Amino acid sequence: SRILRDLNEPLVDHAEGQLFLNDAFKIIMEEVLCKGTDIKQKVCEWKEPEELSLLLDLELRATGEPRERLLQRVKDVAKYSIKTSHPRFFNQLFAGVDYHALAGRFLTEALNTNLYTYEVAPVFVLMENEVLRGMRQLVGWTEGDGIFCPGGSVSNMYAMNLARYQLLPDVKRQGLFGLPRLNVFTSSESHYSVKKAAAFLGIGTDNVIFVKVDDGGRMDPVDLDEKIKLAKSQGAVPFLVSCTCGTTVRGAFDPLDLIADVCEKHKLWMHVDAAWGGSVLFSKQHAHLMQGVNRANSVAWNPHKMLATGLQCSALLLQDTMNLLRNCHSANATYLFQQDKFYDVKFDVGDKSVQCSRKVDCLKFWLMWKAVGSNGFADRVDKAFSHAGYLVDQIKKREGFCLLQEPDFVNICFWFIPPSLRGKEGNADYQDRLAKVAPVIKERMMKQGTMMVGYQPLGNKVNFFRLVVFSPVLSQKDMDFVIDEIERLGNDL
Amino acid sequence: SRILRDLNEPLVDHAEGQLFLNDAFKIIMEEVLCKGTDIKQKVCEWKEPEELSLLLDLELRATGEPRERLLQRVKDVAKYSIKTSHPRFFNQLFAGVDYHALAGRFLTEALNTNLYTYEVAPVFVLMENEVLRGMRQLVGWTEGDGIFCPGGSVSNMYAMNLARYQLLPDVKRQGLFGLPRLNVFTSSESHYSVKKAAAFLGIGTDNVIFVKVDDGGRMDPVDLDEKIKLAKSQGAVPFLVSCTCGTTVRGAFDPLDLIADVCEKHKLWMHVDAAWGGSVLFSKQHAHLMQGVNRANSVAWNPHKMLATGLQCSALLLQDTMNLLRNCHSANATYLFQQDKFYDVKFDVGDKSVQCSRKVDCLKFWLMWKAVGSNGFADRVDKAFSHAGYLVDQIKKREGFCLLQEPDFVNICFWFIPPSLRGKEGNADYQDRLAKVAPVIKERMMKQGTMMVGYQPLGNKVNFFRLVVFSPVLSQKDMDFVIDEIERLGNDL
Ligand SMILES: Cc1ncc(COP(=O)(O)O)c(C=O)c1O
Ligand SMILES: Cc1ncc(COP(=O)(O)O)c(C=O)c1O
Repeated sequence: SRILRDLNEPLVDHAEGQLFLNDAFKIIMEEVLCKGTDIKQKVCEWKEPEELSLLLDLELRATGEPRERLLQRVKDVAKYSIKTSHPRFFNQLFAGVDYHALAGRFLTEALNTNLYTYEVAPVFVLMENEVLRGMRQLVGWTEGDGIFCPGGSVSNMYAMNLARYQLLPDVKRQGLFGLPRLNVFTSSESHYSVKKAAAFLGIGTDNVIFVKVDDGGRMDPVDLDEKIKLAKSQGAVPFLVSCTCGTTVRGAFDPLDLIADVCEKHKLWMHVDAAWGGSVLFSKQHAHLMQGVNRANSVAWNPHKMLATGLQCSALLLQDTMNLLRNCHSANATYLFQQDKFYDVKFDVGDKSVQCSRKVDCLKFWLMWKAVGSNGFADRVDKAFSHAGYLVDQIKKREGFCLLQEPDFVNICFWFIPPSLRGKEGNADYQDRLAKVAPVIKERMMKQGTMMVGYQPLGNKVNFFRLVVFSPVLSQKDMDFVIDEIERLGNDL
Repeated sequence: SRILRDLNEPLVDHAEGQLFLNDAFKIIMEEVLCKGTDIKQKVCEWKEPEELSLLLDLELRATGEPRERLLQRVKDVAKYSIKTSHPRFFNQLFAGVDYHALAGRFLTEALNTNLYTYEVAPVFVLMENEVLRGMRQLVGWTEGDGIFCPGGSVSNMYAMNLARYQLLPDVKRQGLFGLPRLNVFTSSESHYSVKKAAAFLGIGTDNVIFVKVDDGGRMDPVDLDEKIKLAKSQGAVPFLVSCTCGTTVRGAFDPLDLIADVCEKHKLWMHVDAAWGGSVLFSKQHAHLMQGVNRANSVAWNPHKMLATGLQCSALLLQDTMNLLRNCHSANATYLFQQDKFYDVKFDVGDKSVQCSRKVDCLKFWLMWKAVGSNGFADRVDKAFSHAGYLVDQIKKREGFCLLQEPDFVNICFWFIPPSLRGKEGNADYQDRLAKVAPVIKERMMKQGTMMVGYQPLGNKVNFFRLVVFSPVLSQKDMDFVIDEIERLGNDL
């Protein structure tokens, strides 16, 4: 073809490309940001996988398609995707939209660079540093280290690897072969990423010891101490306690100060998985939930959850000032991290990561922080707690709704008891029948597209709803709607 | 404040937010996409870290800033960032821009969802599946599995974990304790992520055995066979051979068929790290470089490199049809992967990952593939090879330029010998002086902002330039420019 023969003809036509991008941007504005946040529009347009496949015509072919067809595809993708910024999306620990953050994300995508060296990411090396410093300050550390990771699970994994390296630096070179079993301690309601990390890092899920929780889902420090002693007596080597601030389901906060005492006593690395709850640190009123976090060795905190920066934005924060992160993860590749560069190579932060390419996750958070200030974040957190308080009150007042517990945080867990089950708590099949209620209501809400709320069982508690109220686009009437709607959808069950 | 008291007032004003986003989009268009791709503009605006920090006023404060200030910040971030889409950016294995992919990335950001369940990502679960199928087809597999990972390093790690799990499934639960050493084999010019993976997974970098390469940087299958036998005789357990297609520095392709024979003989998992080179599979003319790839167990392939989808886009492809990926990585969290859902839960793909939140990386690639077709990708690959051929010819003709070798791929490695060193090859300090040339030229090009090219040493070869020519925005005159410019910048050295 001509284009191949003529080496002076680039393969991309900028004018045409920019026109396409402009049109796509308009569609995104209209379909995702206007309609997608409008309560008169659906949260989701449910289709079975087979049907959706056909509708989307996903197949990849030899020849390209004309621009109108491609713009229609942009529209279709938007149409059939879940509107996670919609005020009635309560399904996950992320929701809503912040436009400053979104602008930061578009800019990140357009700039398309990698956070490994100062030479390709000068702005972002410095910016990440500053954002991490701001976060560490809230933890209570004036010094330290840190890095943004592709999600909280990876942040937790990093903490596990660092704790291991701190105790046994030779593992980096020699592996775990021939060593006694290493043990990790975490509560029975901690996030599953602790188990995934142990499996991935060669430690094994059996070596994750689950500590009991109290009625509210908070780790029991006495049981922790006992399990550590037991592990030692069985020849295992405890090395890490992973606490949780804001457990995934119930939103519980482990008692950090008491756990820190146990960690100090046994000389264990204390990690705080605050992926979900970390943002309370912005609030004067609620930061006490994380009292003692400054005694931790590491903290994982996801602004992409409560602060709605957009996915992904997860920081691992470290108290360490001895370059542990770099020493643990470095490979000193000479093609990327040359030591004879003309600038100070301490700004080449890439060797702190186990990734090579690493996305810029700090810009969206930084821009949003500049836009609203720490005070603005505090307001958001406080408002989320107010929303939660309001919702709890409504649920208590409403017949057929039954709270699992008074929440510590903004996870409101409750059952809806349909009329046919009310007063039947004593029946042998009560729990079995109750367990089936949430899945049916979930199916109905999705098929009608009116809202999305998650449900799950927990221990011996059968399926209950978990409503998380923190999205910045949320208002009281959305919460009123949710309870009315659950009632409407489930009243005949 | 009023906003806190009034629960019916959401914290985000959509109209105002959308106006901001619109204005930010215009700035992005102008500064990043128009100016940032214009050869009359600089590739980079070099500032020392201290100065840049001051210019950007990065500090995070208690109060927010007005909109005009924030828009200025968007402009500043663009101004001082590297223009990786510029035709004179040759610094990494990513470069250039594709507007369809970029539209896909903006849409991804706006939709802001996670690729773990069908209920929150119906379109993307199906789309990822289709894109992986398309990629597997090029590898030569009609069936199989796969997943998008946050970068090629993580894809390589996944392969290592899968190979280990396949051989020793109990490691997932019990860890590596008490086992004999596991050994990984890879060439001495493979990417450093193999070492990072071995460290992270608890295998240890000493257990990565480096196989010799031939003159072109390709793994020597005879040496591989010998090293495997040696390892066995020393009591280690070989379990994985990680081949490279398109090595990072020289762009070499390991001889897959010969390596596959060795892997079969020893019953080892064969992984192909085609993060960089995988895209040759689109080209009828050049796919032969990966002859034998269909015999691999796994392939890592980054469309974010040669195909300019934008960061990040890396797939791990598997020949396996027995659910190895899910079995190896699953934790079966009941809050996310409930089994009593109303749809077929095989579409909840999240448990194949060690992440929880996982970005949608398939949309940008899918939209671009729809836009240009497989034929369009073939053209891009073929054109990159043509560019490379042209550049090699120019380098050969030009006095003072010395090729490291005839390239297999689009990595052109060469020294610039300044006039003062020409004909002095016999001098004792020749290599030392030559080693200092590239860093100085690099400093000058960045300070003048005219272009960006990488350099590095390799084994006993002192610092040489690596020019990678594949960006879709590239034309012949850009390559002419680069050699002229290197000469201009280095002639006095
Ligand atoms: C307590 C907790 N920790 C960690 C994670 C994992 O974070 P990510 O989804 O970013 O991997 C989650 C996710 O919901 C979580 O709730
Ligand atoms: C051969 C090879 N493999 C793997 C990688 C790692 O890919 P990523 O940067 O996406 O982690 C690279 C990066 O340059 C590479 O060149």
